[in-house]
Amino acid sequence: MPVSGAKPEMPAARPQDPVERLIAILSTDIHAVDQLIHERLSSPVSMIPNVATYLIDAGGKRIRPLITLAAANLFGPVNDAARRLAAAVEFIHTATLLHDDVVDGSGLRRGKAAANAVWGNSASVLVGDFLFSRAFALMVEAGDMATLDVLSRTSGVIAEGEVMQLAAVNDVDVPLERYLQIIEAKTAALFSAAARVGAMAAGQSGAQADALAGFGRALGMAFQLIDDALDYGGATSSLGKNIGDDFREGKLTLPVVLAREQANTQEEAFWRRVMGGGVQQAGDFEQALALFQLHGAMARTLATAREYADRARDSLQHAPPGPVRSALADLAEFVLERAH
Amino acid sequence: MPVSGAKPEMPAARPQDPVERLIAILSTDIHAVDQLIHERLSSPVSMIPNVATYLIDAGGKRIRPLITLAAANLFGPVNDAARRLAAAVEFIHTATLLHDDVVDGSGLRRGKAAANAVWGNSASVLVGDFLFSRAFALMVEAGDMATLDVLSRTSGVIAEGEVMQLAAVNDVDVPLERYLQIIEAKTAALFSAAARVGAMAAGQSGAQADALAGFGRALGMAFQLIDDALDYGGATSSLGKNIGDDFREGKLTLPVVLAREQANTQEEAFWRRVMGGGVQQAGDFEQALALFQLHGAMARTLATAREYADRARDSLQHAPPGPVRSALADLAEFVLERAH
Repeated sequence: MPVSGAKPEMPAARPQDPVERLIAILSTDIHAVDQLIHERLSSPVSMIPNVATYLIDAGGKRIRPLITLAAANLFGPVNDAARRLAAAVEFIHTATLLHDDVVDGSGLRRGKAAANAVWGNSASVLVGDFLFSRAFALMVEAGDMATLDVLSRTSGVIAEGEVMQLAAVNDVDVPLERYLQIIEAKTAALFSAAARVGAMAAGQSGAQADALAGFGRALGMAFQLIDDALDYGGATSSLGKNIGDDFREGKLTLPVVLAREQANTQEEAFWRRVMGGGVQQAGDFEQALALFQLHGAMARTLATAREYADRARDSLQHAPPGPVRSALADLAEFVLERAH
Repeated sequence: MPVSGAKPEMPAARPQDPVERLIAILSTDIHAVDQLIHERLSSPVSMIPNVATYLIDAGGKRIRPLITLAAANLFGPVNDAARRLAAAVEFIHTATLLHDDVVDGSGLRRGKAAANAVWGNSASVLVGDFLFSRAFALMVEAGDMATLDVLSRTSGVIAEGEVMQLAAVNDVDVPLERYLQIIEAKTAALFSAAARVGAMAAGQSGAQADALAGFGRALGMAFQLIDDALDYGGATSSLGKNIGDDFREGKLTLPVVLAREQANTQEEAFWRRVMGGGVQQAGDFEQALALFQLHGAMARTLATAREYADRARDSLQHAPPGPVRSALADLAEFVLERAH
């Protein structure tokens, strides 16, 4: 029996990250969803699986379908409906990425050439539409009108969020609240729906489903804010690859919104020039980082992400306890760590 | 009692065209669908209704939702589900048009600037996604999993057809069968589904629903072939506006497929240059028209359209008789007349 407080002679093994823990618990289901995904993106029109596989196998962690499976597993063994809904969620996400690439025009995604840079915008638009249709076909197979309702509404919300963001490009006057509204729609809504439909597939509809939806929404907010931070190098501002895309595209994110709130006249002119569609010059990006430092904008972005992560963890307090709940709760912390 | 063979003293009033007749019979339902459409394309994000209304109010005849309502009305008064499905069909069609404009890049739609030429490709992609989501939300409200199944499959087929067409641009070696397969997927499938879900909403599922689906498919084929013909001026080759878009874009359509089947070596070289992505010169379009004339390619295109129109009419022979069936049957003939 271990003596309380005694130090182990060997350093404790670093606990596995929560994604790995969930993957270990849900491996059978993940494998089934994986098979379903590859089966359903097949088509006699070879360009479709080529484009779709390029993105789906690009090494993303499939965090959204994992959340669906985990949410279902909180309430019992994962059933077929939950697996189909998990695949549908990943298809909606992938369709959104394909269309985003066309909208952003950045040419890169996760450090490799974006699909539209390889196959062209037309292929990205149409294969996105195909995946979107397949997502709905999977939901139909899952056979529950209530989950179809959740995911069709969510798809509409995502599109609204993307249009809001499009309308805000090169608009430096986006207030904080509107910015949070945009990322809630374009990112957090799908995390929220992914968790909710998992719970629903497991027979939950009331408070438990709402709590899971709240968890997903808060986790999605933290996730997006960390993404925003990472585009400027995160807490350390270390300049790796794919840094500065948002800045170059004039896409407003939280660090800029917060830095602008504190800007003096000269700084305001800087932000208007660089984010307002004007010409960017050498040194502008470094100047932006310096202004973040001056006004604590990066630190406050990370603190906001932490608030959401805490809220995500709190949302799970009445969920059935066990290793899945623990892993989900740790997921929020894990998301934050990416930025450090 | 009129004497058989006697000529009337006054010329008989030209019977109303079948679209007008259907609109007269279904006016209450059309009005309700119209309201539903405008209600559901509303969004606090003003760019969405702006872009969507631009296209939806552009003066199209809303032939697809009209077919849904008419198919339902064959079997009794049109119910709420049929109206929602009709609106969903129009939303799917509009989403497809928005995405098509991005893919075609022609800049014009029905003789006015395409939405993407006014608001940009990004807006067209995202507003299309929004309308697609709203279509599924309307289907969920209609509340029948079987119609959701039909329309989600159809959306996938449309996307596959569009990708097939994309892969065939500047490919002059598309055989006739493949060409027919493309237009069946990208155009006829939605006409077919529009008719089928109308019948289904009216409680039909077996032979009647299949017959209506067959009607829609054949009508859609005729419709697309006439569109192909009109892009080269139709039977008269009169050169109005919007003529020659397919030719300039290297988009293979039936007249070209048929003319190529008869081409000698010199003609084959012509088609390879002008449709295969090479440089087009002044006089090329007129040369194409001359080759159509030489090989009867336009006449055979119109004859093929007629075959489909006849098949559409025949599909209705066991449908409940009455003014709606008559108008639907005449619709096929009406579609043909556009090209003369």
